[in-house]
This record gives sequence, C-alpha cells and structure tokens, in this order.
Amino acid sequence: MGRLVTTDPTLYPAGRLRAVAEAVRGKGIGALLLTPGPDLRYVTGYDAKQLERLTCLVIPAEGDAFLLVPQLELKAAQASPASGLGVEMVSWGETTSPFGIIKNRLQRPESVALSDRMWALHVLQFAGIFPGAEQHLASEVLSPLRVRKSAAEVQALREAGQAIDRVHARVPQWLRAGTTERQAGEKIAEAILGEGHATVDFVIVGSGPNAASPHHEVSDRVMQQGDVVVVDIGGTMPSGYCSDCTRTYAIGEPPADFAKYYAVLKDAQAQACDAAGPGVQAQEVDRVARGIIAAAGYGDWFIHRTGHGIGLESHEDPYIVEGNATELEPGMAFSVEPGIYPGPHGARIEDIVVCTETGRERLNNAPTDLVIV
Amino acid sequence: MGRLVTTDPTLYPAGRLRAVAEAVRGKGIGALLLTPGPDLRYVTGYDAKQLERLTCLVIPAEGDAFLLVPQLELKAAQASPASGLGVEMVSWGETTSPFGIIKNRLQRPESVALSDRMWALHVLQFAGIFPGAEQHLASEVLSPLRVRKSAAEVQALREAGQAIDRVHARVPQWLRAGTTERQAGEKIAEAILGEGHATVDFVIVGSGPNAASPHHEVSDRVMQQGDVVVVDIGGTMPSGYCSDCTRTYAIGEPPADFAKYYAVLKDAQAQACDAAGPGVQAQEVDRVARGIIAAAGYGDWFIHRTGHGIGLESHEDPYIVEGNATELEPGMAFSVEPGIYPGPHGARIEDIVVCTETGRERLNNAPTDLVIV
Repeated sequence: MGRLVTTDPTLYPAGRLRAVAEAVRGKGIGALLLTPGPDLRYVTGYDAKQLERLTCLVIPAEGDAFLLVPQLELKAAQASPASGLGVEMVSWGETTSPFGIIKNRLQRPESVALSDRMWALHVLQFAGIFPGAEQHLASEVLSPLRVRKSAAEVQALREAGQAIDRVHARVPQWLRAGTTERQAGEKIAEAILGEGHATVDFVIVGSGPNAASPHHEVSDRVMQQGDVVVVDIGGTMPSGYCSDCTRTYAIGEPPADFAKYYAVLKDAQAQACDAAGPGVQAQEVDRVARGIIAAAGYGDWFIHRTGHGIGLESHEDPYIVEGNATELEPGMAFSVEPGIYPGPHGARIEDIVVCTETGRERLNNAPTDLVIV
Repeated sequence: MGRLVTTDPTLYPAGRLRAVAEAVRGKGIGALLLTPGPDLRYVTGYDAKQLERLTCLVIPAEGDAFLLVPQLELKAAQASPASGLGVEMVSWGETTSPFGIIKNRLQRPESVALSDRMWALHVLQFAGIFPGAEQHLASEVLSPLRVRKSAAEVQALREAGQAIDRVHARVPQWLRAGTTERQAGEKIAEAILGEGHATVDFVIVGSGPNAASPHHEVSDRVMQQGDVVVVDIGGTMPSGYCSDCTRTYAIGEPPADFAKYYAVLKDAQAQACDAAGPGVQAQEVDRVARGIIAAAGYGDWFIHRTGHGIGLESHEDPYIVEGNATELEPGMAFSVEPGIYPGPHGARIEDIVVCTETGRERLNNAPTDLVIV
C-alpha cells in the first residue's frame, strides 16, 4: 500500500535540488546517482518504487540534472512532483540500456555517489560503465541536509507521532490472555492504517519470553496472565515521514523483579530525553541512559544503542550510540529507546524527540508508565 | 505487515543450502554473501528485514557457512527456520564491526557474489574489506536454482494465484462512477489482505486516461461512466510467494475504438500463454504477443515486455522479452501480460503461467473477457 500517497510541496520544496547540486560540487563528487527510495523522494518528492528497471536521478557537479525513467513509468514520473522541478526526463525503452545513456551523458566522472539503498544489481552496473570512478555513498552528500529537518518536516514527524500515539492508546484492548501475538499484531496493523499511516512498517508484539528479544516480531504464542508485552510499532505517513514508538504493557500483575527494573528504565529513558539538546553529542544521550541502567546493575541487559534518527526512513542519521560525536542541532529527530532484557521478560520505552533551538520536543506523548491491562 | 509470516519447511528444504554451496564452488566464486531479502529467504527460509545493521549469510566455497546477525536479532534468527540448517550463528554487538568479523574469517577471497538487492551501503563496505576481490551478483549463482520452482513452490504460486483471482472477482463492486481510484484502491488493498496475502505489494487502478499509463498507481481521479479501468494488483502470501494479475474493466459501455483493440489484446495474450512450454525461448513468447498486436496495427502502443518471472519476488528471472534466449523449463513461472495503450485509454491482461513437463499451466483463471460493471 506504499503507493497510496500524496505529496505536500512545502515538504519537498523545489529549491532543494539546487542545494543538493551545490553539495555535490562542494564534496568534489562527479555525479550523484539516485535510484528510487528516500534519497530520491527527499530531493524530488517522487515516491517511485525500486524495481529492476532503472529509474535514476542524475545530478552532475557540472551541467543539468536529468531523470532517467523507464518508458512505461514516464507518465507516472510526469504526474509526480518531480515534474515541477524543471528537470529533463529521459525515457528508455525495453530493449535499450539505460546505463549506456548515462555513460554517454556523463563521459568519465572521477567519482560518483550512489543512493545508500541502491541495489547491488545497479551498483555493479555503474561500476561497469565507470570503471575508474570511485564509488561513494549518497549519504556523504545528502545526510548533512536530510539530518536537519525543516519546520514542515518536523510538523510531518509530529503528525506521525500523534498517529502512532493514537494506536498505542487503543493497544490495551487487544492484549488479552488467550489471544496470540499474531492476532494482536493484525489488529494493531489495521489500526496503524486506520489512524492515518499509508503503510505499516513493523509490528513487534513480544510477550512473555519474547519480550526479551528486542527484534522479535509476532508469533503464534498465546498471551497469558502475568505476561509482560513489548509493543514496538511504526508506519509511514502519506507525507513520507515515519513513526516509531514503543510501550511496555503487562497483562495483570507483572513479576515482582520486573517492576524494579521497569522503574529504572523509565527513569533512564526520561533523563536521556531531557539530556538531548543543541550542542550535545549524540553519544552523550546514549551515555545518560546507559549510565543509569548500569548503575542500577542492569547494564549487561541493555544490548542495543539508545536510538536512531528518523525522517523519510525509520532508521537514519543521527544514530544515538557510543562513538557518534555528532553534535545535535535544531531539527535533528531521533528515537530515545533504552531497553532492559534480563529474561524471562524484558522492557523497552521509546519516544521520538526533535532537537530545538533551546532544548528538545517530544513527538510522542503517551505516558511511559507501565500499562497494566 | 511483511512480518506476519509463517514458513513451511517443504518450501524451504534444509538440503538447499548444500546445493547452493555446490553452486558457489561450481561458479568459482570465493564466497556468496546474502543480506536479508528473497535470496536469503530462498536459501534459509529466514524472512529477515533489510536494515542498516548487517545480517549476512556467508557461504564460502571452502569451509562452513555462517550467519552473521546483530546481537539484538539473535533470538529472532534462532527462532527462524535458519536454526534448523545447522549453520553457526555469529552475533555482533552495537559497537563492533560485523565487516571485521567476515574479513577475519574469509581472509582474502578472489571474488564474492552479493545479493542482487544488497544495499550500496553494504556493497561498498564489502568492497572496502575485500579490495582486490571481484564483485559478482548472487543471481549468477542462485538464479539457475531459483528459476526452476519445486512442486511445493508451484503450489505456493498456485495458492497466490487463487487468492488474487478471488480479489479480482470482488473488484467490480468498487469500480463505480463517482468513486476515486484511491478509494477503490483502498478497498482492493484490504481485499488483498482479506483473501490471504501477508502484504499488499502494489495496487494499480488506472481509469480513463490513466489506463494508458502502464505503471500508474492510484490517484484522486473520480471514475466516470464510459471509463476503461486497468486493475493490476499483487501481494505476497505468508509463504513468501507472490501474486500478480491484471484485468481490464469498463464502467458502462466502453468507447467504440476500444472494443476493437481489446479483442486483439485478448487474442494476443491467450496465444502467448499457449506458446509457452518446455524448450521454447522466453523471447518467443514475447514475439507471439507482439506479432499479433503489430499485425493488427497496434505495435507502437505495446511499449513494454510481455512478462517477468515470479516467485519470492514479483519480478525475477525469466524475463519474457526480446533478447532473452533462455529456453523455458518445467517449473519456470512468469507473467504473460501484453498491453495496448493508444490513449486516451488503454488495456492490459495478465496471468501467471508455469511451464510444465508437457506444456504450461495457468495459475490465474479468471475469464479474460472485458468486464463491464
């Protein structure tokens, strides 16, 4: 259902292409090559689908950008926001080589930068037509732009946060002893769409021992009285922007040892959120959460980073992890989601936070108390 | 909702890994590197999600295969069918490099083959750790195996075909003058899930002039009396196998010139289906459809190939296109979907066909007559 989308011109301003072309020159890259995915959507608003047939926006350091599209996608491309950018659209037929067209136009670039999510299928073909050219990732050029969200992008993320908060408000009714994780997951998936997302990106319902597996999805396990249930869910809005929020629930009274570490987790998550702000290093936010959890004796059970950036992708820069000294800037949006997984149960709390001029704003606002259903 | 899946061991037999390892040696490739996607699922049954954190099945020409997984995915990997293969699982933590682990274990392979859908993000990192190694596509090794479906795989495709046929049987009620394409598309998407798919992969509702844009998806266009509507839809079943079927509908009496070319199209599609069989070149099937359409004077309006293979991907080998001399073999499954798009309307008819020992079997069985709603 990823195709049932709309595009708001304030989110995808036409001036962005010029800024990207300047960044290409600034980085000394010969040409930026963007296949369908979040990078192409960011630059043009065109939400094309990644397929074996090459669609590629070519932004050379010198000269005009052009969009190569398969002939049978031409009308769709012309109907997309990309048509408002004044970019030449070059279509190719079923028995010609799109790579030959790009090779002829670019001649011999010394380097190219490729969408981070470009398929190997295309990466190796670009290596073949530009044998001497160094291959870089598009994120070298685009991440510095994408990581600082505009006011319109923050608003899109705010709306995504509100939508997933509404889903979480409905979750308790589906967590019942005697129901399977999969059954609850299906209801949650319907609600993700019902509350305004265009696609369901992931549904984690980790009950009982599965709560201790951070990337468990759903299973046929029947939920039981006394279970702890981690529910981590997200989708993509028609705007293209993503939601991601985790709450931990308990079906009836949780185990005694659980309550103890849940309190630690709640405190760690709150303090890590509060630590975020302009000039603070990404890894500092991780250290705050990790320090509190370790001091309480649960450090060995917090086995993942504290968070990840979010925008047109569920996971993007900046990563909130030890070793990332990036200083947070206004407009950077990311998850703060520490977890403790000692088994035979576990817990995680996650909110999206955006750095502001003076501090931070939480984009999820459901209470972080344990919800006993 | 791609995660709400189950895995049938007859579809993903444990012996497949051994066959793949033999193929790696046979091709003289140093190691096959499979990140999440259809290749990994084919070999192991593990339906992992492609993420920035590296999950990679390494199948060296010499020595044992191993599955590298992020620490927080380990329990999910252990719970997957991959655990039944006797493959060592190697987990990596948040602040270590998974590429370093692979580099140490493989030493200096002269060549590696990468999943066709591996992200450039990972392709370039593999190029970095194996600077001298030639990069190949995994399809060089896997396509000859994947292209010939087992009886269990054909049955999975048959079930997918039946599911999408049931959706098409319900489509006419949603194609009404006064309704938008998007509204119809949302109903169809719900029905794709309701009839048993795990995910909706695409929904094309091309009405009026949009019927002449083969990869149009949905828009806010209000459908009108006299419209022709191309409906091309597909999803992925819980088995992992895909459906894809197109029918053309008319809301009330279609334009006079339309009926004429629709009859040509119906004949071309039927004859192309009947042309498929063991020993027939893929391009021959294309030529049959194209010949009939060209002879009737519509050749300029048939602007795409006749079809594509289908299995764990909606589009895979064998492609039914001029230039593909691959001889069809029993178990090869593909679409036969000619179209005629003269504007201001157009039409396409698509069925999935599987080559058998003696001929072919259609996996879609809805009538191909124009449906007037």
